[in-house]
Amino acid sequence: MKPFRCRLPVRFGDIDQAGVAYYPTLLDHCHAAFEDFFEGALDRPYPKVVMADKIGFPTVHLEADFREPLRYGDRLDMEVSVARLGERSVVFRYRAYRKGSRKPAFEVLATTACVSLRNFKSVTVPGWLRVKLARHVREKA
Amino acid sequence: MKPFRCRLPVRFGDIDQAGVAYYPTLLDHCHAAFEDFFEGALDRPYPKVVMADKIGFPTVHLEADFREPLRYGDRLDMEVSVARLGERSVVFRYRAYRKGSRKPAFEVLATTACVSLRNFKSVTVPGWLRVKLARHVREKA
Amino acid sequence: MKPFRCRLPVRFGDIDQAGVAYYPTLLDHCHAAFEDFFEGALDRPYPKVVMADKIGFPTVHLEADFREPLRYGDRLDMEVSVARLGERSVVFRYRAYRKGSRKPAFEVLATTACVSLRNFKSVTVPGWLRVKLARHVREKA
Amino acid sequence: MKPFRCRLPVRFGDIDQAGVAYYPTLLDHCHAAFEDFFEGALDRPYPKVVMADKIGFPTVHLEADFREPLRYGDRLDMEVSVARLGERSVVFRYRAYRKGSRKPAFEVLATTACVSLRNFKSVTVPGWLRVKLARHVREKA
Repeated sequence: MKPFRCRLPVRFGDIDQAGVAYYPTLLDHCHAAFEDFFEGALDRPYPKVVMADKIGFPTVHLEADFREPLRYGDRLDMEVSVARLGERSVVFRYRAYRKGSRKPAFEVLATTACVSLRNFKSVTVPGWLRVKLARHVREKA
Repeated sequence: MKPFRCRLPVRFGDIDQAGVAYYPTLLDHCHAAFEDFFEGALDRPYPKVVMADKIGFPTVHLEADFREPLRYGDRLDMEVSVARLGERSVVFRYRAYRKGSRKPAFEVLATTACVSLRNFKSVTVPGWLRVKLARHVREKA
Repeated sequence: MKPFRCRLPVRFGDIDQAGVAYYPTLLDHCHAAFEDFFEGALDRPYPKVVMADKIGFPTVHLEADFREPLRYGDRLDMEVSVARLGERSVVFRYRAYRKGSRKPAFEVLATTACVSLRNFKSVTVPGWLRVKLARHVREKA
Repeated sequence: MKPFRCRLPVRFGDIDQAGVAYYPTLLDHCHAAFEDFFEGALDRPYPKVVMADKIGFPTVHLEADFREPLRYGDRLDMEVSVARLGERSVVFRYRAYRKGSRKPAFEVLATTACVSLRNFKSVTVPGWLRVKLARHVREKA
């Protein structure tokens, strides 16, 4: 199975004083891709997960490599996969490709904890979600 | 009494592709000034208003004039006052002055509704807050 | 001709402490819709306008009405039209409809100045762009 | 010498649907602290570095640990130090402490490349800046 991809533009307001995309904005784009992944790949929109299922996936650890500056007008193909599916945690991998490029412009590994949104306590990833996430595991970098 | 002022920098990430502060960011700065106004001028931090008093002031109408482009490194003296104190609404005026300038670089009038955060229904501005806000009314532009 | 529309989601990070979309974020969405309008309706992507044509449309005046709070998971159909096409200015109108709703959740009129990005001086809207914009003029509210 | 510290509030708009600070916003706060560090600790405001000296420090690698959720009204004491001072790169460490807490709520290591902003090519950290940065090196975690 091919990894999930969604397309996100680098916007006018994403640019900083150096003329390139401001890096916290790129992490905001990762979260957008994460949301699109829940809807497009897991078939359970994240608003439902958060508001009906009452669970969330706050990021507890992050590793990111920003390899190329991104400019206004660049379009990112954001690839989302599961790098590790733990008992109570999920590591998501994001790779952002500029149109036509085979090397990611940036890459992010985000370790998230599965928590109850009632009390922010760590919980087991529910079975129904584990099954869905398992289809997107790609352990190898 | 002099109007309340706080100082906010134009940040690296506030700049857009045109090399000036992205205007939605300037409205974000107005909200920061609004929060500083509650703490510094009304002596009731907005977190307490929202989380303990359970009321909020969502913006329902906005008028803004952006007169001069702002650059990275500009420091804004944000002046906050009450342009109109209604029964269930408050109009806040923001004027942002660049250091040394007597003409505001931008100016915003934000009409806010006083709402209960339990149900987002309109409520009367509580007496204790009305007294505080009344000291900052400057109806004339 | 029907007005241009694009769809934008209310994102997880758009929500504020009151549990609704933070209003500066909604203006950020208007700018995204403005960018999509240039690409989808005018057939000249804004990155080209800014970086090749060297003109821009900074907002100089803004009027906005926020009629209904927006929640996480809401999808906005953003309608973009030209409310007034001036010699050196363009007024854009944005109307954001929640799915299924016929009344806009918020509405924004943004007066922009056409400026040279070489010096930020006001310039005449170029003929080729005027022709394109003219097709999207809908003066009546 | 004590490490540089600046105070930054968690703002109303920083909060996400889960009721805690949205993590890309926390990285935005790190950049704000980075800017305050240049002004307050290095005595060379970053706007001058970027616009007069024409060098910049884009982040090329990032490692972050988010240990505790942050709430609206939290005030962050942001500690900034230099974890490693390379020939053409600088690793900055950020530790964000909640008021009264001795354990950081989050911690970030950001590897930045020193680049010429004329062409985004890697350059040697200039001597005058190296001297200043050297005073803030704290290699041990």
